Amino acid sequence: MRQTPTTNSTGTSRRGFLRTVGITGGAGAMLASMGAMGLAPTAAQAAQREAGYRAPRTGDFTLGGRAAARVVVVGGGIAGLASAYELGKAGYDCTVLEARDRTGGRNFTVRGGDTTTDTNGNRQQAHFSEGQYMNAGPARLAQWMLTLDYCRELGVPIEAFTNQNANAYLFDEKAGMTAPTRYRTAKADLYGYVAELLAKATDKGALDGAVTADDQERLLEWLKDFGDIGDSLTYTGSARRGYATDPGAAGTPGRVLGGVPSLSDVLSDGVGRYFSFEFDYDMAMMMFQPVGGMDQIPKALTRAVGAHRIRTGAVVSGITDTAHGVTVTYRSQGREHAVHADYCIAALPPHILAATPHNLGGAVQSALKAVTPVSAGKIGLEYRSRWWEEKLRIYGGITETDMDLSHIWYPSYGYHGRRGVIIGYYNTGANADSYGALTPAERQQRAVAQGVKIHGDIYRTELATAFSHHWRQTPHLLGAWHSMPGGPDAAAYAPLNKPAGHVYFAGDYLSYADAWQHGAFSSARKVVTTLHQRVLAA
Amino acid sequence: MRQTPTTNSTGTSRRGFLRTVGITGGAGAMLASMGAMGLAPTAAQAAQREAGYRAPRTGDFTLGGRAAARVVVVGGGIAGLASAYELGKAGYDCTVLEARDRTGGRNFTVRGGDTTTDTNGNRQQAHFSEGQYMNAGPARLAQWMLTLDYCRELGVPIEAFTNQNANAYLFDEKAGMTAPTRYRTAKADLYGYVAELLAKATDKGALDGAVTADDQERLLEWLKDFGDIGDSLTYTGSARRGYATDPGAAGTPGRVLGGVPSLSDVLSDGVGRYFSFEFDYDMAMMMFQPVGGMDQIPKALTRAVGAHRIRTGAVVSGITDTAHGVTVTYRSQGREHAVHADYCIAALPPHILAATPHNLGGAVQSALKAVTPVSAGKIGLEYRSRWWEEKLRIYGGITETDMDLSHIWYPSYGYHGRRGVIIGYYNTGANADSYGALTPAERQQRAVAQGVKIHGDIYRTELATAFSHHWRQTPHLLGAWHSMPGGPDAAAYAPLNKPAGHVYFAGDYLSYADAWQHGAFSSARKVVTTLHQRVLAA
Repeated sequence: MRQTPTTNSTGTSRRGFLRTVGITGGAGAMLASMGAMGLAPTAAQAAQREAGYRAPRTGDFTLGGRAAARVVVVGGGIAGLASAYELGKAGYDCTVLEARDRTGGRNFTVRGGDTTTDTNGNRQQAHFSEGQYMNAGPARLAQWMLTLDYCRELGVPIEAFTNQNANAYLFDEKAGMTAPTRYRTAKADLYGYVAELLAKATDKGALDGAVTADDQERLLEWLKDFGDIGDSLTYTGSARRGYATDPGAAGTPGRVLGGVPSLSDVLSDGVGRYFSFEFDYDMAMMMFQPVGGMDQIPKALTRAVGAHRIRTGAVVSGITDTAHGVTVTYRSQGREHAVHADYCIAALPPHILAATPHNLGGAVQSALKAVTPVSAGKIGLEYRSRWWEEKLRIYGGITETDMDLSHIWYPSYGYHGRRGVIIGYYNTGANADSYGALTPAERQQRAVAQGVKIHGDIYRTELATAFSHHWRQTPHLLGAWHSMPGGPDAAAYAPLNKPAGHVYFAGDYLSYADAWQHGAFSSARKVVTTLHQRVLAA
Repeated sequence: MRQTPTTNSTGTSRRGFLRTVGITGGAGAMLASMGAMGLAPTAAQAAQREAGYRAPRTGDFTLGGRAAARVVVVGGGIAGLASAYELGKAGYDCTVLEARDRTGGRNFTVRGGDTTTDTNGNRQQAHFSEGQYMNAGPARLAQWMLTLDYCRELGVPIEAFTNQNANAYLFDEKAGMTAPTRYRTAKADLYGYVAELLAKATDKGALDGAVTADDQERLLEWLKDFGDIGDSLTYTGSARRGYATDPGAAGTPGRVLGGVPSLSDVLSDGVGRYFSFEFDYDMAMMMFQPVGGMDQIPKALTRAVGAHRIRTGAVVSGITDTAHGVTVTYRSQGREHAVHADYCIAALPPHILAATPHNLGGAVQSALKAVTPVSAGKIGLEYRSRWWEEKLRIYGGITETDMDLSHIWYPSYGYHGRRGVIIGYYNTGANADSYGALTPAERQQRAVAQGVKIHGDIYRTELATAFSHHWRQTPHLLGAWHSMPGGPDAAAYAPLNKPAGHVYFAGDYLSYADAWQHGAFSSARKVVTTLHQRVLAA
């Protein structure tokens, strides 16, 4: 996530009690208990979220005699679909309005035959082979994320996503590197030298006073192992760097990769900055992806919600909060339509909503306008052979660069197959903008020219077809994710974290996992819980 | 690999030339070229191996007019099957004799219905559910290994093997730990403190003289990132440790895991010694496994060799080198049989061969007896639910311990399924011997009692069935891998690295990848190449 989460805490025993109640009763029973405990709504909600989400159930209404309400959901991305799906569990009558011709929002898997037209007028058709695809939007799931729970619940099979690979490359062209280095090689060198420096400093007494003699002893033993520096405490290379000729039969012990760079060279290459990526809570392996493309998730959600409840090609033209509900107007196939409902969940991008006529007030409008969309783009390059596996022994993973393509992703599916799709760039911000301003043919040319510097001519000669996608230039979405200084709980966004009349706001931007589907699911669950509580209490 | 590979080198231009020849001609053409260059056989062989393996072809014989020979292969493990498979490409008439009732040797995948009887008389039947299995022997493939080439060539689909997982546990009971820690948490803490120590030492001038001011500056920047220590250069915890409550919607920023231990506690836990595992050339991610069980490899090899060429249940009782060939006798279904062939490839375990009557001489026998078998065992625990995924968010990976169970593996297949098989111990040496001496029921009881300390009661209550396998107690194999001081090229083993008359020796023990199928394939390729050269030159 982009915001730095803060640490807070609540009373453990009270949470423990609420968790127990939450597990045995429904949301209604839990809320009743909270009321009996005299918890204020905010504290009750926070405690409930900590205690775990409870999906609405039809049984919740038997306590109060209330009936499920009618809800119009604007936006058929993950937040919108998840809202309709969860409310549907309690019998809410939901209608989803989606401006594009498919659900999923930024969860978009491109396959052969798919076409797009961007806001610059570039029309593309994908010519990927059968079974080949690129995830143009989200592409990886961390183990802790709600998205995996939805995969389980919806029966979407998953497989490993290769977010780290010791055999992938690092290449900092601007730093003066003339050839890429393997991740494993760069790591062996930098960790080796760092171990040497600290071991020698320890040996010279630099830690005396700060660290006990026993701990210094333990530290030295660990550093020898961490840096593979032996008793000399000196880094001179390591089999961890890799082999020029692999170990084989007797007579062929292998030749360890030579040419160990100096510490100074290692530091000036600067590739060590890539190592911490794998420590990140969001990025550490293991990670996963749905089998067959990320859009298996919105497809499964769409089936679960029911296709009859979803109207694609429905461009919302107005949201009007009324005394007893909401009216949403939309244009579809050249005609104007209106939906009247008890509540609305606005699950479209905030900057799109800001440009849509509504009567939700100046505070809401200011908050929406305080959210800035961010650029990101990807290009999928389909190759006639999987030369990265056969010739380079790179089975998945990511090559990191300081070039304008930023990252190159090797595919996490179809190993040993005939063809494969490499993500030739995945870039953001100014790099994405500069590629996004080009025609698709120019993007391909530029991406391939850069990739050739890393992979050689094969990167050009084996290329079969390419498809690029840029989110800032994608109609009805116009952004990859969001810039929100201070995070979603900053005062500037407060009007979006509560309903405006009968209208609720949902989306990954209103979470601490912006740009992740987990954020969209989290936000949907929060809104669904709040809306359901209101209906139950009405 | 267990031996430390040494670095050597040969002239690049000559190798470059040979590689070119090797790529355009067959093995015969290459050998002819080498002869023309006046290369001694050993150098030629080494150069050829460096230039890449060339499989024998029927076309090789058209040059010299020689015919493929008859070869008896003793042992239907990976080395034996690969030998017969490669020789078969040139039309050699191979017969494989396998003592057990299946091919694959130590490549053994256990499924429901499989039965074993060990040398202690323990009979087990596996009761794993449909689709569940355990790989009792080899279970992971590194990207660089030949085994993957054979998977590609033989059409064996592969998928990721989860050799590392930041969410898996570390638990050193003997070091006094009372609860397991997540891999990510332990790593964040130790890397954090190490970064702090080196950063502060640098800041105090401890590196002056040894490292330039510019490099110190670069190092400091890197250490801040590596240890997440900020400008204070002090480690006080990090979101990399993980969360007590995960980040979610607005209002729920998440609670970072608290209770940061002191450096002294981190060092005395000792779990930092597990971190270097992932740097190892053999063990770094990405790693892979065949879809559906490791035995898909011997099954595919068996099909490629031809079932009619393979005799299972054939216990070899004698190997006799004669003036013009080899006679191998074996017992099958109570009767004695004999195979006469031009050559023999002895691809059975060296200690089994040492106990088999042969006339290969005292030097060979001494060499065979110098190889000592090593113990290893595993237990597969099938659970009624995948609680490690649902409750612990552990999707694959390995929990490391200092307990007698050593490692616990979470399955790399069947994610989100109804059931799953955990490897409850994978231990070696004395730990394997102590478990191997128990009955299967006692092994299960002991393994589960240990695992409960890490995972709690669910480790016992959800258990459905268990199956254990110990290689030192496995008839006709009697070992997991081998202890060979000095490596396969040590003088003690020299008689095994060349033919004894018409008998060649193959196996992972005669490689720098002992215990890996890569070693068996490498050794097979070496023997096949040498034997084929001899036949061509005869």
